[in-house]
Amino acid sequence: MIGKSIQPEIRALIDARDFTTLKEIFADWYPADLAELIDDLPDEDEAIIFRLLPRKLAAQTYEYLELEKQKSLLKAMGQEQVAAILNDMAPDDRTALFEELPSAAVQQLISLLTPEERATAQSLLNYPEDSIGRLMTPDYIAVRRDWNVQDVLNFVRANGSDKETLNVVYVVDDKGKLIDDIRMREFLLAPLDKQVSEMMDENFVSLPVHADKEAAVEVFKKYNRTALPVVDSDEHLVGIVTVDDVLQVQEEETTEDIQKIGGMEALDEPYLEISLLQMVKKRAGWLVILFVGEMLTATAMGFFEHEIAKAVVLALFVPLIISSGGNAGSQASTLIIRAMALGEVTLATWWGVMKREIIAGLSLGCILGVIGFMRIAGWTLFSDIYGAYWLLVAFTVSFSLIGVVLWGSLAGSMMPFILKKFGADPAASSAPFVATLVDVTGLVIYFSVAFMILRGTLL
Amino acid sequence: MIGKSIQPEIRALIDARDFTTLKEIFADWYPADLAELIDDLPDEDEAIIFRLLPRKLAAQTYEYLELEKQKSLLKAMGQEQVAAILNDMAPDDRTALFEELPSAAVQQLISLLTPEERATAQSLLNYPEDSIGRLMTPDYIAVRRDWNVQDVLNFVRANGSDKETLNVVYVVDDKGKLIDDIRMREFLLAPLDKQVSEMMDENFVSLPVHADKEAAVEVFKKYNRTALPVVDSDEHLVGIVTVDDVLQVQEEETTEDIQKIGGMEALDEPYLEISLLQMVKKRAGWLVILFVGEMLTATAMGFFEHEIAKAVVLALFVPLIISSGGNAGSQASTLIIRAMALGEVTLATWWGVMKREIIAGLSLGCILGVIGFMRIAGWTLFSDIYGAYWLLVAFTVSFSLIGVVLWGSLAGSMMPFILKKFGADPAASSAPFVATLVDVTGLVIYFSVAFMILRGTLL
Repeated sequence: MIGKSIQPEIRALIDARDFTTLKEIFADWYPADLAELIDDLPDEDEAIIFRLLPRKLAAQTYEYLELEKQKSLLKAMGQEQVAAILNDMAPDDRTALFEELPSAAVQQLISLLTPEERATAQSLLNYPEDSIGRLMTPDYIAVRRDWNVQDVLNFVRANGSDKETLNVVYVVDDKGKLIDDIRMREFLLAPLDKQVSEMMDENFVSLPVHADKEAAVEVFKKYNRTALPVVDSDEHLVGIVTVDDVLQVQEEETTEDIQKIGGMEALDEPYLEISLLQMVKKRAGWLVILFVGEMLTATAMGFFEHEIAKAVVLALFVPLIISSGGNAGSQASTLIIRAMALGEVTLATWWGVMKREIIAGLSLGCILGVIGFMRIAGWTLFSDIYGAYWLLVAFTVSFSLIGVVLWGSLAGSMMPFILKKFGADPAASSAPFVATLVDVTGLVIYFSVAFMILRGTLL
Repeated sequence: MIGKSIQPEIRALIDARDFTTLKEIFADWYPADLAELIDDLPDEDEAIIFRLLPRKLAAQTYEYLELEKQKSLLKAMGQEQVAAILNDMAPDDRTALFEELPSAAVQQLISLLTPEERATAQSLLNYPEDSIGRLMTPDYIAVRRDWNVQDVLNFVRANGSDKETLNVVYVVDDKGKLIDDIRMREFLLAPLDKQVSEMMDENFVSLPVHADKEAAVEVFKKYNRTALPVVDSDEHLVGIVTVDDVLQVQEEETTEDIQKIGGMEALDEPYLEISLLQMVKKRAGWLVILFVGEMLTATAMGFFEHEIAKAVVLALFVPLIISSGGNAGSQASTLIIRAMALGEVTLATWWGVMKREIIAGLSLGCILGVIGFMRIAGWTLFSDIYGAYWLLVAFTVSFSLIGVVLWGSLAGSMMPFILKKFGADPAASSAPFVATLVDVTGLVIYFSVAFMILRGTLL
């Protein structure tokens, strides 16, 4: 079985308002399944489900919901229920929710917390936005070097129930300084009388609390951990970050990359939730820049106005030729941007990439050139649209295609390198950006080829 | 400290061939750091490092390397060393390596394994490619319902050392059927005399061994687990999948999506490693389709040939207008493809999306329309290029921009819905695809507007 789908019986019980039965059923469910059920329910039934759940399960289910759903539920639930859930939530998930709310609302919600939880919540919110401090939770297991395995297991059994993870245990000195991390696995496999100090290698990876969230993604990826300790500038252990929070950061980063590849600023909010004005702003910026760049095509075309007037047939192929260059460029830039994000391609390998793109661009250009030639030759059999010099026109189009596709591949593949070299985000060399660049130069290539081939005949 | 950077001293020791000191230093290192060091070293030194590592650490370090690096090392290392590493590797990582090698090489390597490891390796390779069976490892902890917590902890201490994870323990009946999963956390927190049967809720999530790899990503995401059990069609436990393997599958999926957005088939191999012929093939397919589609622009332009001959000025703005529509479409389709991949937008919400895009498209179109108008008006002050009817030309360009940008936004946002509705991958509605679609219709919009505004004057 993959998961548990929302059975029609559940819906029937909700419609029948049979809360006693539902309460029994839900007690056995996973938070993830309850969250899915709540997502599917009409708004007015959502708060009811929460009232049927045991306290701890209610908090866990709430943690699983999307932030937007969490926000709307805050309004639908009574104050007592909100207080219960907020006090039982994991501190890191609670910080993520508070980040999304206006500060007046946050102050009000914090006043519902117990003094202990309030102190935790406020200290986490004191860390800068986008810092690792905002991702962490202070619920970890810390042990001393003079304990033995049995001591550690006893300590965990007595104090572990509210900890975010028991997979890793942290060794601190009497000043709270982090001196090692040891996986629970080691304790489960070691003899019970072994000393913690014997198990230590004093070799550990930690995250600085003020570092950027995105730095955590790299470290988690490299060391393949489920949790990492967070330390302040004096190396004191202040919290841990778990992999689920980091995955969310990574997903957001990828979304930003994809949106930039699409030729706009990253939205930073889900499509259906961002305000229309915000979205138009984020899209208009790049659209206007591209438009202004593309105006050069009108200038370039104006430069060739007399040629077009003499041979209108040339104008017919303008969109075909420049768009082929743009498409080839879009392919190349997308490939390189992603390969850079995955670390497959680095600045140093630009020459290897360029060699590949010269061959790939020439091959692709020849393929399109041949098809373009056949198209013009084929059409000529049935119509007179390309006139007496159709063969020369066909050669002009073919050679231009080879040149433009080669140029598109080169510009598209090199632009991410150039941007990265100058400290900009390679993902900004979006398909539309490269297409615009290639459009202008593509026109120059096309009309130059035309001038060489058609001089003395059409031109 | 974030990680451990490769100190110049290490390089000095390698250059000095001081292997005794290196051996001591490396014994304390993390596999991830060793792997990074090896990535940075010249090829001829790589195999040497492995000879300096303790057996277990050598296998763990090897697991961390990229598949391509693993392949090249196989050739550089002696047979004895290869045998040691392959026998100590985690079965799931070994399967991933075997998948990349020609079958003759795999047969040869399998013959180096101990009989036990050979049986494991062969049974994993028997599962279909892209199935969950290829991702799993049979190294898990299985316990019985009549044991108590102390029994389980004793069993783990005696048998756990080669298991992929100790974070979850699986309860099976005497036929090997999976009846529950219990997190190690529960055992660490429960009284030692508690029965396993008392801890069971018989509520678990499992993956079918023949299901597609991509299905595993969804389940891991939903339930937020670090490991999930895999069962055959009789519900027997056959292995487990851990989150690190699933993350890799997810990364590959995102890469496919991004490459499709860039207007090509997914490469399925790293950019610098795929053969040039393969890459050209994967890019040529879509490029030719787009080219053939774009040929309609030549047809459409041919249809308006007489208008262009009468008013060459019209041709000047063709690239500007159609590319603006393409850019708007690229933004819209990228946004919707990503929102669909994240589950933010579903088929049912198409009307909400369309309403947003109508407003966004009109706003963006008006912004570009105003800029375009000012450009033509401004140029006219200094040159006569747009002729006596420049005002009418400016209106033609402005209104066309509004129409084309609106149409681009609508086409770009709706295309992913249409593809998904018909069972295709929404990511195929790439920026180049939408641009091509919009180019052809954009021309029709432009010349229709021109005909209405300029009839009786220029046309």
